[in-house]
Amino acid sequence: MGRTNQKQAKDRHHEILEAAAKVITDRGLAETRISDIAERCGVSPGLILYYFESKDRLLVEALTAANDQFYLRLSRELRRTRSAREQLDRLVELSVPGLLPEYSFLEEWALWVEIWVLALRDPAMKKEHEVLNRRWRQSIADVIRHGRSTGEFPEGQDADELAVQVGALVDGLAIQVLMDSSDVTPEHMLRACQEACGKLLGFAVEPA
Amino acid sequence: MGRTNQKQAKDRHHEILEAAAKVITDRGLAETRISDIAERCGVSPGLILYYFESKDRLLVEALTAANDQFYLRLSRELRRTRSAREQLDRLVELSVPGLLPEYSFLEEWALWVEIWVLALRDPAMKKEHEVLNRRWRQSIADVIRHGRSTGEFPEGQDADELAVQVGALVDGLAIQVLMDSSDVTPEHMLRACQEACGKLLGFAVEPA
Repeated sequence: MGRTNQKQAKDRHHEILEAAAKVITDRGLAETRISDIAERCGVSPGLILYYFESKDRLLVEALTAANDQFYLRLSRELRRTRSAREQLDRLVELSVPGLLPEYSFLEEWALWVEIWVLALRDPAMKKEHEVLNRRWRQSIADVIRHGRSTGEFPEGQDADELAVQVGALVDGLAIQVLMDSSDVTPEHMLRACQEACGKLLGFAVEPA
Repeated sequence: MGRTNQKQAKDRHHEILEAAAKVITDRGLAETRISDIAERCGVSPGLILYYFESKDRLLVEALTAANDQFYLRLSRELRRTRSAREQLDRLVELSVPGLLPEYSFLEEWALWVEIWVLALRDPAMKKEHEVLNRRWRQSIADVIRHGRSTGEFPEGQDADELAVQVGALVDGLAIQVLMDSSDVTPEHMLRACQEACGKLLGFAVEPA
């Protein structure tokens, strides 16, 4: 394949994943047909199945692509500040569904919930989830270690273990926001995360 | 309807919900047909639709029934102890998927994840989720208030707000256990919850 064809194939691949993410977010995986995605990006269903063997595979690849975007953005933001407290704030802000208008994570979160349903009973999906989830915990643990090296966070409990707790807190609060934003608004989640992170990691948070 | 008929109808209703919970947990909502549930409890699909108007309705009712069992058990356990620390431990233990062999919550958790998918884009499901979720937060807040009245937990942040944080932590950790029990085992979740609750609520937890 020539370079132009390779680029075209890569663009096409990317377009299909974007369309898949949109359709799955709008309708839910159960109500999504390969033909809906094909229609949205103007290709044949056969071409989609040529790139991705199944709807489940398409979901995994779409979530991975959305997740890559998240980490690309996160690493860019984290490079801008050396303060671990600010890095942690930024990591949390980027994770709150619908907090940042210019960068909606509703789509990525919707794909996560769909993966949870599949992974409940599919070992291959469990593996896919594990890979994505370890990256999430690793990012949190890195910020914690950085904060200890700068003296912003006290030494104490194992950073990887704390990352499990912080990661779970963010996931659990995000579900609340996605489900029921009258009880837990994005701003409420942000504040709750900051306060809880202060207590879990052992630093003082200024009153709101 | 005579008393015997009413009882029969109630039993039938209950049997259908139990069968629905089992089939949805095994296959996932998307792969569940009303006829699968009908077959499992030996009734006609028509009778199921007579009691429950749709598959989604059946899911909500099945989760509500499983959730009622959880609270029945929880309130029985909480009555046995006056210590808020022990009550909190018990609340957490009962929530860890697969921790207590005699009482598996895998089923209830699987139904929760299915509700999350539906509620992402269905306002009626969001409402159903809200009702169930408020009961969960209320139970946690009640234990926190009790612990303050006994002096086991220090006064401080609003109990309802802390209940949001503790509830989110339990939900987020449960997802980890359900998805990936090699990284986060039920015992790991129990310990992580106890430690994190100690920090969030301000009491000392003995080292493992």
